[in-house]
Amino acid sequence: MYDIDATHDPKRKSWVESANAAGHDFPIQNLPFGRFRRAGSADAWRIGVAIGDQVLDLRAAGVASTDDMNVLMAAPPSQRSALRATISNGLAEGSAQQAAWSKALVPQAQCEFTVPCRVGDYTDFYTGIHHATTIGKLFRPDQPLMPNYKWVPIGYHGRASSIIVSGQDFKRPKGQTKAPDAAEPSFGPSKRLDYELELGFYVGQANELGEPVGIDDAEAHLFGVGLFNDWSARDLQAWEYQPLGPFLAKNFASTVSPWIVTMEALAPFRAPFTRPEGDPQPLPYLDGAANREQGQLDITLEVYLQTAKMRAAGQAPHRLTHGRVAEAAYWTAAQLLAHHTVNGCNLQPGDLLGSGTLSGPTLDAAGSLMELTLGGKQAIELPNGEKRTFLEDGDTLALRGWCQRDGAVRIGFGEASATVLA
Amino acid sequence: MYDIDATHDPKRKSWVESANAAGHDFPIQNLPFGRFRRAGSADAWRIGVAIGDQVLDLRAAGVASTDDMNVLMAAPPSQRSALRATISNGLAEGSAQQAAWSKALVPQAQCEFTVPCRVGDYTDFYTGIHHATTIGKLFRPDQPLMPNYKWVPIGYHGRASSIIVSGQDFKRPKGQTKAPDAAEPSFGPSKRLDYELELGFYVGQANELGEPVGIDDAEAHLFGVGLFNDWSARDLQAWEYQPLGPFLAKNFASTVSPWIVTMEALAPFRAPFTRPEGDPQPLPYLDGAANREQGQLDITLEVYLQTAKMRAAGQAPHRLTHGRVAEAAYWTAAQLLAHHTVNGCNLQPGDLLGSGTLSGPTLDAAGSLMELTLGGKQAIELPNGEKRTFLEDGDTLALRGWCQRDGAVRIGFGEASATVLA
Repeated sequence: MYDIDATHDPKRKSWVESANAAGHDFPIQNLPFGRFRRAGSADAWRIGVAIGDQVLDLRAAGVASTDDMNVLMAAPPSQRSALRATISNGLAEGSAQQAAWSKALVPQAQCEFTVPCRVGDYTDFYTGIHHATTIGKLFRPDQPLMPNYKWVPIGYHGRASSIIVSGQDFKRPKGQTKAPDAAEPSFGPSKRLDYELELGFYVGQANELGEPVGIDDAEAHLFGVGLFNDWSARDLQAWEYQPLGPFLAKNFASTVSPWIVTMEALAPFRAPFTRPEGDPQPLPYLDGAANREQGQLDITLEVYLQTAKMRAAGQAPHRLTHGRVAEAAYWTAAQLLAHHTVNGCNLQPGDLLGSGTLSGPTLDAAGSLMELTLGGKQAIELPNGEKRTFLEDGDTLALRGWCQRDGAVRIGFGEASATVLA
Repeated sequence: MYDIDATHDPKRKSWVESANAAGHDFPIQNLPFGRFRRAGSADAWRIGVAIGDQVLDLRAAGVASTDDMNVLMAAPPSQRSALRATISNGLAEGSAQQAAWSKALVPQAQCEFTVPCRVGDYTDFYTGIHHATTIGKLFRPDQPLMPNYKWVPIGYHGRASSIIVSGQDFKRPKGQTKAPDAAEPSFGPSKRLDYELELGFYVGQANELGEPVGIDDAEAHLFGVGLFNDWSARDLQAWEYQPLGPFLAKNFASTVSPWIVTMEALAPFRAPFTRPEGDPQPLPYLDGAANREQGQLDITLEVYLQTAKMRAAGQAPHRLTHGRVAEAAYWTAAQLLAHHTVNGCNLQPGDLLGSGTLSGPTLDAAGSLMELTLGGKQAIELPNGEKRTFLEDGDTLALRGWCQRDGAVRIGFGEASATVLA
């Protein structure tokens, strides 16, 4: 439903020179949205669009009349596309806006960022079938996938207040845990702190309570996509999660990237939606011609770990994981949104839908340490000889993502990074 | 921690005559907070306090400088107590404010109400041990209570956007269900729609991310209490809830009462916090002298059902349930709040903590139809001969609650009511 148009033209360059560097995350074909202010100031947050190593201040440039990202997100797709065209044209080489808009640029290095919108409600899904299978095996070797998995896009509600932006560090959570052979639980810091590699889908247009969104209209209700790390305390989770699901194991922090890459920017980067032979046909409310045609998002995701020791020695972060969303996800974002609303639940602009951990079919594409270390049984070794089963204090974990294919300019998601504090 | 003072004096009367009627929910000793406007207007919501059959408009009376309930809720307890004293003194017989404040009264019958504050995050707990045991027996006859139940105040995140105020009807949800003997799930309206009798605890003062609230400080972070109906589609829940908990079975609607009864108003109504002999001692972070001394809230709760047929025949609602919170809850509200923050999770003013279904030890105090009908196996008969296993279209379900004891004036919670639409 999001068309490829002149804003995606690979020949288009920007008068912001840094945006034209090969392999840069933020060329003129991307134009992701975020909220920023001058670092160290107490100014109100403003809406910006990333272009190269700069931020375009949308109100200063005269293209937005609001500083409220959620208001901007609520606009219908036609208005959003028009806004994208205006920004793209104004930033393009030879634009008449160059002189005026130059004054509306702020170097990203001089900015601080916040969560890109007010997240009213956050829902986490479980669309990574390889993740669900591997984790399921650890608990239920005979039945890794629950009988509902291939029918129901499994999801649960998460905590909105503890969503933090990349760069904001957080304390290792404390809580109850119980060793399998212990008679009673004990209390203390989590010893099995993990990350989860996810995408976050941001809702744009709302639906009213009691009014489901049809599968083929669902993608039009999405504003865009960011990186999402659903930090998880596995030992807290194991003891608390029956019978109502994860709670304190998750709600101490979840990290998002500062930038929302719009659905429009992602239009050239789609992959077929396929399912293994013999899998059930989705029920009609999850199946539609547009959903099949749109398919999956074709995004490559990576996870990097830098320990305190590596940082002190000036060693670069080490890549733990590298995989493709289209190989990891069992459901499309449109299916998640249609499912979420089918009972009448109302979604609002700025609501966040986590994809669930996007692990690929092979171990080098596993989206959590729980998987990479076989449930904590087999430590991974880092290039400097350090070993990890779970995260230690001082570890910095970063998610990255990007889209690339022939005939299109590569676009990137920036980074979702945080350091674990004691 | 909330003292009994002159605002609780049973001899105190109001110049608002309707507040002095015996058995009225809103005497001058109560003074609950809500958000209201003239019915049918498009005015902004204003903060009001219920007094008899009137609402005192706090800004018109000159006692609040904000229309934002969440700002008012965020105040420290000392400020809140001072505000309560100001309102109580102004509404008391012989007050110098009578002439001025008379103009700030609006009859409740001419008002409409909304959810009493912006609920940022809503968490639902599971503190009703008789409910957990009865429901558990239906699924796991050999082990009704999970091993964690008496250690962990079990909770999970709910959906904030679909919280609605009493009087707002909602559509029966649709979704996937699977009969035990069916090969595949099917799609359609829920056939096992139920209510859950709960209290909602509203957070007042916030805590910062990473900063737990100690057990003996926890009650000071609560602003007050309302009635809460966590509508549940049991058939959707049974198919979707493994392994991450309830989702679409709950998030189509949750009903709150318009009024928040403050912790200050509840000061005279406390009951000892006791546990069965042999139950484990709570871990230190859940155990404190103040928590033991404060004990449970002593509130009586009731559930009333009126079918469409009863309504047409002018028959009064039929009482399904009658029980006491202190006999139903295994954890105190302070324990819920301390547990919620122990991992560093940040609570914000206006956040809502559901108690979980508050079923008493006997069937006449069961807080859901699932319990009253033994899992839908044994219909209950209403006075007009109608039978119910679960709710039918046109049924109106209302929760009521009140506190009463010698030496104090009875206070009430009003009502949380809604009708199921097709």
